[in-house]
Amino acid sequence: MHYREVRTKREFAARMETGADWREEIETLAAEEEIDAGFFYALGAVQDAELWFYDQRDKEYETVQFEEPLEVAACVGNVAWLDAERFAHTHAVLSRPSGQALAGHLHAGTVFAGECYMREFEGEFVREPDETTDLDLWL
Amino acid sequence: MHYREVRTKREFAARMETGADWREEIETLAAEEEIDAGFFYALGAVQDAELWFYDQRDKEYETVQFEEPLEVAACVGNVAWLDAERFAHTHAVLSRPSGQALAGHLHAGTVFAGECYMREFEGEFVREPDETTDLDLWL
Amino acid sequence: MHYREVRTKREFAARMETGADWREEIETLAAEEEIDAGFFYALGAVQDAELWFYDQRDKEYETVQFEEPLEVAACVGNVAWLDAERFAHTHAVLSRPSGQALAGHLHAGTVFAGECYMREFEGEFVREPDETTDLDLWL
Repeated sequence: MHYREVRTKREFAARMETGADWREEIETLAAEEEIDAGFFYALGAVQDAELWFYDQRDKEYETVQFEEPLEVAACVGNVAWLDAERFAHTHAVLSRPSGQALAGHLHAGTVFAGECYMREFEGEFVREPDETTDLDLWL
Repeated sequence: MHYREVRTKREFAARMETGADWREEIETLAAEEEIDAGFFYALGAVQDAELWFYDQRDKEYETVQFEEPLEVAACVGNVAWLDAERFAHTHAVLSRPSGQALAGHLHAGTVFAGECYMREFEGEFVREPDETTDLDLWL
Repeated sequence: MHYREVRTKREFAARMETGADWREEIETLAAEEEIDAGFFYALGAVQDAELWFYDQRDKEYETVQFEEPLEVAACVGNVAWLDAERFAHTHAVLSRPSGQALAGHLHAGTVFAGECYMREFEGEFVREPDETTDLDLWL
């Protein structure tokens, strides 16, 4: 377990804009407020979604596209620097009218409505290549 | 992205009462402690659940009822004023013994056991009708 | 609703070690930092997972084992004392490459990658047997 104590600098409550991209909205908040490290959670609904699944053996992302309205039952993630940009690592659980749940790494999704709570920490998270997983990880 | 900086006033840890309603328990905490704005997350189990799905085209909620014990794998939401009452907007991911996940807007569910962490912010969230989505949104 | 106001003592951001156990990693943080009460949420991926489902009638846990790589779309839980050990009560939503979601009480899972945010509260949570549910509950 790699960890460090963090201190909260500021907190934000946000409402995402209908028609915008879910992840980009979070990154907009991070960029405008110059958040260099943070954790967030959110809920709402999207008009479509692109989920990514990381193939742990081939070390590549596979994508799945859902062209349908979905609830965002839960969304958790964090903000860190990745390749000189603020990146919102975003996982989400989505659902269909039947209650059927879909989930994964949320690459993109058109916002219908979204509510987000973000904590900003002092210092910064910086993602760097990790040899074992071939992912970009912080700490 | 619409957002504002918030400041935490108080924090609460809560255990829901077996047999009570999941969302009403959260609203009871909000009412008793006069929480006018907050975010929470929770986990536990319910004896049944009613999920709502918002039809983004018809602008109406459809409901699905589950008359069976379900784990609450994740629950996130917030507290705001809606029509002169404190409303806990509550999304949840539920699961069956097989591990199958169900998710959505949790309108109601009979608590088996539940653990919740709530943050109260200064000021208040007030939900008002939004023309684009026909939902009641804050900010 | 049983609740109490809590005060945050410290906060931690953590990255789990590839190959370690998901829940044990959280308990390692709790043990090393002597966290007696806390709430956390996390995201990432596991190489396998064991979910438990509590049979509300028979008052026993059933287990389901998944021997496959899964995304951890959302994970929420808390740290409390249980039988003289720090226990991380951990629920999680997992997903397959198709986006199919699985969820429940995460007993174990081999970490592929994991990111966790933990808040430590003053005082302690102590789990004690609850007659109604036959579970060990705090507060």
